[in-house]
Amino acid sequence: MVITMTINELRRDYIIDRWVVIASQRRKRPTDFIVERPRERRSAECPFCPGNEKSTPPASLVYLLSSDGSIRRDEDRGEERHKNWIVRCFPNLYPAFSPIKLESLSNIQGGFEYVRLDALGYHEVLVESPNHDEHPSVARVGQLIHAINALKDRTKFFMEKDFVKYVSIFRNHGASAGASLSHAHMQIIAMPIIPKIVFEEYSASKRYYEDNGRCIFCDIMVKERGTERLIYENNAFMVFAPWASINPFEFWIFPKRHQSTIIDMRDDDVKDFAVTLRLCLGGLRGLLNDPPYNLGFHMMPGEHYHWHVEVYPALSIWAGFEKSTGTYINIVPPEEAARCLRESLESEKRRLVH
Amino acid sequence: MVITMTINELRRDYIIDRWVVIASQRRKRPTDFIVERPRERRSAECPFCPGNEKSTPPASLVYLLSSDGSIRRDEDRGEERHKNWIVRCFPNLYPAFSPIKLESLSNIQGGFEYVRLDALGYHEVLVESPNHDEHPSVARVGQLIHAINALKDRTKFFMEKDFVKYVSIFRNHGASAGASLSHAHMQIIAMPIIPKIVFEEYSASKRYYEDNGRCIFCDIMVKERGTERLIYENNAFMVFAPWASINPFEFWIFPKRHQSTIIDMRDDDVKDFAVTLRLCLGGLRGLLNDPPYNLGFHMMPGEHYHWHVEVYPALSIWAGFEKSTGTYINIVPPEEAARCLRESLESEKRRLVH
Repeated sequence: MVITMTINELRRDYIIDRWVVIASQRRKRPTDFIVERPRERRSAECPFCPGNEKSTPPASLVYLLSSDGSIRRDEDRGEERHKNWIVRCFPNLYPAFSPIKLESLSNIQGGFEYVRLDALGYHEVLVESPNHDEHPSVARVGQLIHAINALKDRTKFFMEKDFVKYVSIFRNHGASAGASLSHAHMQIIAMPIIPKIVFEEYSASKRYYEDNGRCIFCDIMVKERGTERLIYENNAFMVFAPWASINPFEFWIFPKRHQSTIIDMRDDDVKDFAVTLRLCLGGLRGLLNDPPYNLGFHMMPGEHYHWHVEVYPALSIWAGFEKSTGTYINIVPPEEAARCLRESLESEKRRLVH
Repeated sequence: MVITMTINELRRDYIIDRWVVIASQRRKRPTDFIVERPRERRSAECPFCPGNEKSTPPASLVYLLSSDGSIRRDEDRGEERHKNWIVRCFPNLYPAFSPIKLESLSNIQGGFEYVRLDALGYHEVLVESPNHDEHPSVARVGQLIHAINALKDRTKFFMEKDFVKYVSIFRNHGASAGASLSHAHMQIIAMPIIPKIVFEEYSASKRYYEDNGRCIFCDIMVKERGTERLIYENNAFMVFAPWASINPFEFWIFPKRHQSTIIDMRDDDVKDFAVTLRLCLGGLRGLLNDPPYNLGFHMMPGEHYHWHVEVYPALSIWAGFEKSTGTYINIVPPEEAARCLRESLESEKRRLVH
């Protein structure tokens, strides 16, 4: 009798102590993840669409097209709202973090078990385009360049505040991934602590830098380039499915030059980043029928840190095991995810609009 | 002009470095979380229902009622299946961890960035009752006692294997919380690593024990008893909404006597634990129209560790911010969650069936 059963594999993340079971016994084909998704109804009164600017707080930043074709930056003042913007940033109407400091509050601590801080910071929305449906997976590269430049502007502004310890940029796509509005947008949170996952990456990369004199992420890129997990690269960016992906079809986007935050991007980097986002998110859309996903930027000032974007397709449910242990089960091996994404991305290249 | 805006609060967990924004600005009433839930269709061929035992692998443990009223423990042998069981454990048909070791596999490591292990262990299902719908929130206390005793039996069996470093017990309730079958059941995973969240708790409690000579969880219970976060206590158990709850209406169940794993429970503890589960999960069900939830047991042998159950109602979506940072946003302050759960639990006491 031949036992054909295989055993799953437990993999540890490159640098943080996070483990995932790559459960190939449960393996599905990409088509098994495709579900019928009702087209999300576009609200007649989308507060992010042009003309409805009064539905949001005043803009902290707008890009406007000057008559000479250049971009002019401005903000809304008082009750006035700029029209004809190209991208638009404003405070979230229900901010998790806000810059108001009331004197009556203080950072009291009731013993070390009860540590608290005021949630001082910023929580903004970046509307990526006046066009409701111009998500990065289908966007014109030129439009994405404006959105990325606006992210750079706001990140720089937030990082200069002394109470800001970290700037988180993230994107939720699809209602089931937590996007309460379907107009193309990202969110930016500036917060007074370094968040757990980034702190763990930051500490590990610092140790590595001190021991080896090199950036651990730069070294990982060299190694990943030689594997079947590589998905895409261009002049300035590289994309791969990480060794210990905790989500099916997860991929990470890294600048090839050593840069600690997005502020370090030069103009040609920004263009290559826009093309990378367009192709990879377009490839994901094509492969899995525009699936819901979340993405997050990781960035920290510091010579040993290397900024990157992590894209998490939202195709499985984190349940009792994942939530109570911090260990994950992923039924799509990253090597297989990369192969499918590479193929889908190839056909996206023909659809690229600059 | 009076500014009435309040600022949110960032809270850190009692002992691990996990932060949550208690976003009271976004506060909702409990009724806002109640959604119409279609009654989950019971499959005609539920593989966990009596009569369908052949649909699952052979049982590793069944409880059978002897003619003298006592419980007899047995297992299935070969192709035979026990009938008339009271509770039933068997291997998951798609195990994340399994005890088979193929000689062709080994724990090779391709440099420290590529650490892997075979996913050696066990992954079992515990069917809590022959009655499809006898979930803990409505169960007879006597039935829950059998289920808890079976968990103790299997935990003891797994913990005696030298390759098992941790035993995780968890429960997914409701399709949106990841329960693929609606018959009342839990899952047990025995794994070759100590998972991240438990390891962090374990390490912190060990340090505290060495510094203070006391269990940190015992000390936390003393403090929580005096707060508005206390939900329930009986002779052997105490339930409270944790200070830094990351889920709306989250609560934790602790044995009052210092015990490191569920194996330490005596018979009267088991009964008090059954009553506690019944009342608290019944209170949650009554408050929020049988919401989806996950729960997980945390337990580790070691004199400084104190086992407990964490219950996570699945009422919000962890999106890009939570997934990329490991920081959470909870729109229900635990003090308010505790007040609502206390009230709901009061009326559950009248419905208790032993």
